[in-house]
Amino acid sequence: MAQVIEVDDPADARLDDFRDLSTADRRPDRPGGRGLVLAEGVVVVQRLLASRYPVRALLGVRRRVEALAGELADLDAPAYVATAEVMAEVVGFHLNRGVLAAADRAAPPDLAGLTATARTLAVLEGVGDHENLGALFRNAAALGVDGVLLGPGCSDPLYRRSVRVSMGHVLAVPFAPLEPWPDGLQWLRDRGFRVLALTPRADSEPLSAVEPGQRVALLLGSEGPGLTDEAIAAADAAVRIPMARGVDSLNVATAGAVAFHALGREWT
Amino acid sequence: MAQVIEVDDPADARLDDFRDLSTADRRPDRPGGRGLVLAEGVVVVQRLLASRYPVRALLGVRRRVEALAGELADLDAPAYVATAEVMAEVVGFHLNRGVLAAADRAAPPDLAGLTATARTLAVLEGVGDHENLGALFRNAAALGVDGVLLGPGCSDPLYRRSVRVSMGHVLAVPFAPLEPWPDGLQWLRDRGFRVLALTPRADSEPLSAVEPGQRVALLLGSEGPGLTDEAIAAADAAVRIPMARGVDSLNVATAGAVAFHALGREWT
Repeated sequence: MAQVIEVDDPADARLDDFRDLSTADRRPDRPGGRGLVLAEGVVVVQRLLASRYPVRALLGVRRRVEALAGELADLDAPAYVATAEVMAEVVGFHLNRGVLAAADRAAPPDLAGLTATARTLAVLEGVGDHENLGALFRNAAALGVDGVLLGPGCSDPLYRRSVRVSMGHVLAVPFAPLEPWPDGLQWLRDRGFRVLALTPRADSEPLSAVEPGQRVALLLGSEGPGLTDEAIAAADAAVRIPMARGVDSLNVATAGAVAFHALGREWT
Repeated sequence: MAQVIEVDDPADARLDDFRDLSTADRRPDRPGGRGLVLAEGVVVVQRLLASRYPVRALLGVRRRVEALAGELADLDAPAYVATAEVMAEVVGFHLNRGVLAAADRAAPPDLAGLTATARTLAVLEGVGDHENLGALFRNAAALGVDGVLLGPGCSDPLYRRSVRVSMGHVLAVPFAPLEPWPDGLQWLRDRGFRVLALTPRADSEPLSAVEPGQRVALLLGSEGPGLTDEAIAAADAAVRIPMARGVDSLNVATAGAVAFHALGREWT
């Protein structure tokens, strides 16, 4: 049972995990210079509490902490209750969502284990935008993607903004780096995945032509430059979303959603 | 040929269309209390110049205005050139994109004309979020939707933020209000459209079960409450995107993209 503790001094050292949130994502004092995992709002905090990340503490206004009573019954960490004003002083701005939780990072899942049972994987190259990355995890979770592998140039999925935009789904969808690059793609092929590169190139085949029922690793690149030539060359095939004339491309998270749905079309 | 005019006084009345942009969207002095159509950045300005909206003026730093030289050749409106500092004083903040264009609004297209040749329409109910609305137009443009019809509760697609998030595609995809509601849906049916309501309800059929090749009007609701019961009841059928367990729903623009692609699957 989480211990609920009222705090009225914004300088209280027990609240340090939640201090100056707008710069908390990159903390030189944390391993690797990366911040804690931070969840904002009741729904995302629930997802953090249900995740594999070891929760250190909660901080919230009374009403929000009470809304989490069910989840807190099994938690062995303190839940600090403060007024909205004290919270704002601690985090550095007014936080609409009214509750936060902080957790330690955890080692990424074992790649062999992650891929052993997966049917659909997303493999990202150069997805550096935190919002796109978060949205991509949300879409991956909704559309049944079993894991996300990170190639070079991707940002940190556990960055606070990515967690928020993902609505906490980045805490549930397993992810791990794929190295070396692009040779890791051959490693995936050796494990039975068909590696498909999503690219608007004219010589790619439409998604609808992909035979259903295969284990697929879908390669997605960043919005501007797209996938590198070497990544496309390392794939089994290039596939595209047919686009109306004059429209360059979709946002990477949206393109991912369209493709995840299309590739999973055997589910009904 | 647009007249290029250097301006160095931020108080110059000729720049009034671009003044205080963060509140320019709703101007009591404009018809209906709605602002001008404002485009930001070279690409979106190009789309505005190619649109049916009557351009009043441009304002940009020299480099950006020069990048538009080709488009300005046919424009009968002034292009004001200023330094980044003067622009920032006029618009009220530093504008990374370096160029703006302002246009008057135009009457919405005639509904009968818009629907006469359309194969796929999006019909929105309660989409009040400007970013979602903009993203939806971007996705509609990319995936070949011929027009967007606005039911009750939708925000203004020409709001500045919607134009920006749509990457200017809201200036190209025709849109019009659909009234009365929901009886307008019957009017669409009378014109040969199959009206499909996209909803996560369990009794809906998966998108993949929709027979291709039909003229479709796809009903989309807002992210939180979704479509109203009366809108769903007025549709021919309810369809859904199959979701993995535990994930509530996709963003409305993303759901739209998935559905537009799925319904357009006869194009390859």
